[in-house]
Amino acid sequence: MSVLVINEIKKLREIIKENRKEPKTIALVPTMGCLHEGHKSLIAKASSIADLTIVSVFVNPIQFCPGEDYDRYPRTLEADKDAAQSAGADIIFAPSVSEMYPNLQKFSDLTMVVPPYELTDIMCGKSRVGHFDGVETVVTKLFNIVQPDIACFGMKDIQQLFLIKKMVRDLNIPVEIIPCPLVREKNGLALSSRNKYLSDEDKVKALSISRSVFAIRDAYKAGIKETKKLFDTGLANLDKGVELEYLEFVDENTFKPVESVNQDTICAMAARVGNVRLIDNIILEV
Amino acid sequence: MSVLVINEIKKLREIIKENRKEPKTIALVPTMGCLHEGHKSLIAKASSIADLTIVSVFVNPIQFCPGEDYDRYPRTLEADKDAAQSAGADIIFAPSVSEMYPNLQKFSDLTMVVPPYELTDIMCGKSRVGHFDGVETVVTKLFNIVQPDIACFGMKDIQQLFLIKKMVRDLNIPVEIIPCPLVREKNGLALSSRNKYLSDEDKVKALSISRSVFAIRDAYKAGIKETKKLFDTGLANLDKGVELEYLEFVDENTFKPVESVNQDTICAMAARVGNVRLIDNIILEV
Repeated sequence: MSVLVINEIKKLREIIKENRKEPKTIALVPTMGCLHEGHKSLIAKASSIADLTIVSVFVNPIQFCPGEDYDRYPRTLEADKDAAQSAGADIIFAPSVSEMYPNLQKFSDLTMVVPPYELTDIMCGKSRVGHFDGVETVVTKLFNIVQPDIACFGMKDIQQLFLIKKMVRDLNIPVEIIPCPLVREKNGLALSSRNKYLSDEDKVKALSISRSVFAIRDAYKAGIKETKKLFDTGLANLDKGVELEYLEFVDENTFKPVESVNQDTICAMAARVGNVRLIDNIILEV
Repeated sequence: MSVLVINEIKKLREIIKENRKEPKTIALVPTMGCLHEGHKSLIAKASSIADLTIVSVFVNPIQFCPGEDYDRYPRTLEADKDAAQSAGADIIFAPSVSEMYPNLQKFSDLTMVVPPYELTDIMCGKSRVGHFDGVETVVTKLFNIVQPDIACFGMKDIQQLFLIKKMVRDLNIPVEIIPCPLVREKNGLALSSRNKYLSDEDKVKALSISRSVFAIRDAYKAGIKETKKLFDTGLANLDKGVELEYLEFVDENTFKPVESVNQDTICAMAARVGNVRLIDNIILEV
């Protein structure tokens, strides 16, 4: 069966309601499209568990900060259909901005879902002010539209995953969050839709980001526990054309920064290559 | 059948799931307990529509501001059982604070649902900073726990009703909000759990609040449209022992203040009698 593309909330709800009649497990994989092997691994995981797998493709304007790449973010719906279908999706939900935010004059007119300040004033949230408010709001909307039993999120966006799991607990949302491993190119580069922005030359520089987190993991395995030393190891491995935004060591259960790392520590990094912002992370137990 | 009192989220969900098997309409009436005739009218409305009517009784700490009456707010669960049952409730959901907010060290650690600033920087939201964040967050939690088809809210808390309806639209929550009329004592006083705080003497003073909104309505019916004049009419009717907090005229569709009133204008008031804060409102079409 060919994947079904639905643009309207009402239509999607009708189809889901029809499917609910025979008890079925429904999965949601929220994406901004431009699907790569990372997304496909989420979809494959979802469809291995669920009877009906819905992939949302929506470049959500309210999670982009002023000056970010909302306008140029790649939109590739035709290719996304093939990718989603080959990975096991049954439905693509691809709403317009006005379908998701009708009659909106300004973003500040919206009811928002907002994670705690302490957990967003670090890492990606620190430079992308309001980003996670936009993420949690749109994910809440998608959860309310689809009412999935499970939803798959990638561990590449590790702060997002942590905040979504917390949101689900805090707001008693009846969905199970399935974390899925970060997927890399063979050369180590973490897959990202934003890799499309990279020139060949910049891609070589970008490889030093994953090299850096691997070097940190290796140093940890060699017995170094002090974050300051591990930080320096990471920095030493970054190409000089790469501008570090943050390199943080946080506990995976609390997302609080740690001074001394252990097997529950996440090492997370964001850096810019030219005007392309990339992120990577590794859990030190791996 | 006697009303069933449930304290645990897990248990409530099991009962609801069991009931969902035969398609049933489920109604939620969120309350803070201390049920009076106003609440009973909500429960009666709910049970006239739904097959299963759930009344939540929970004094929600995160919607009280510092210095407000959280500690002394009346808790009357035994009486509430009778009141809810006589009005048609099937289940009372009365969770503890730790059931609703497990392992909470401080409120700022929570994921919150936040209405737009412009709609909370007026009327009750202006003096009760953060109040509506607490309301929307707990209502979202209750919606996610119960997943009701309909939910009844009173028009006494008119700003709350407006914000909840907006939240449901903005976040695509699959529930229908049923607004229910404000209920008054025969003497005009708007029913409120906080009326219990009033001495006999203060209750006489409190009557001037409803007298004031009725006087405004009568002046409007007599042809006065200018809010400044209507404001003065209201003020002139307040007893001198009553301290006005606000007296606002807002459009019922936008909640923006108006200069000239019409049949879509809400006149809303908050005032203090001693240390008791009371609210009242009237839609000028009435």
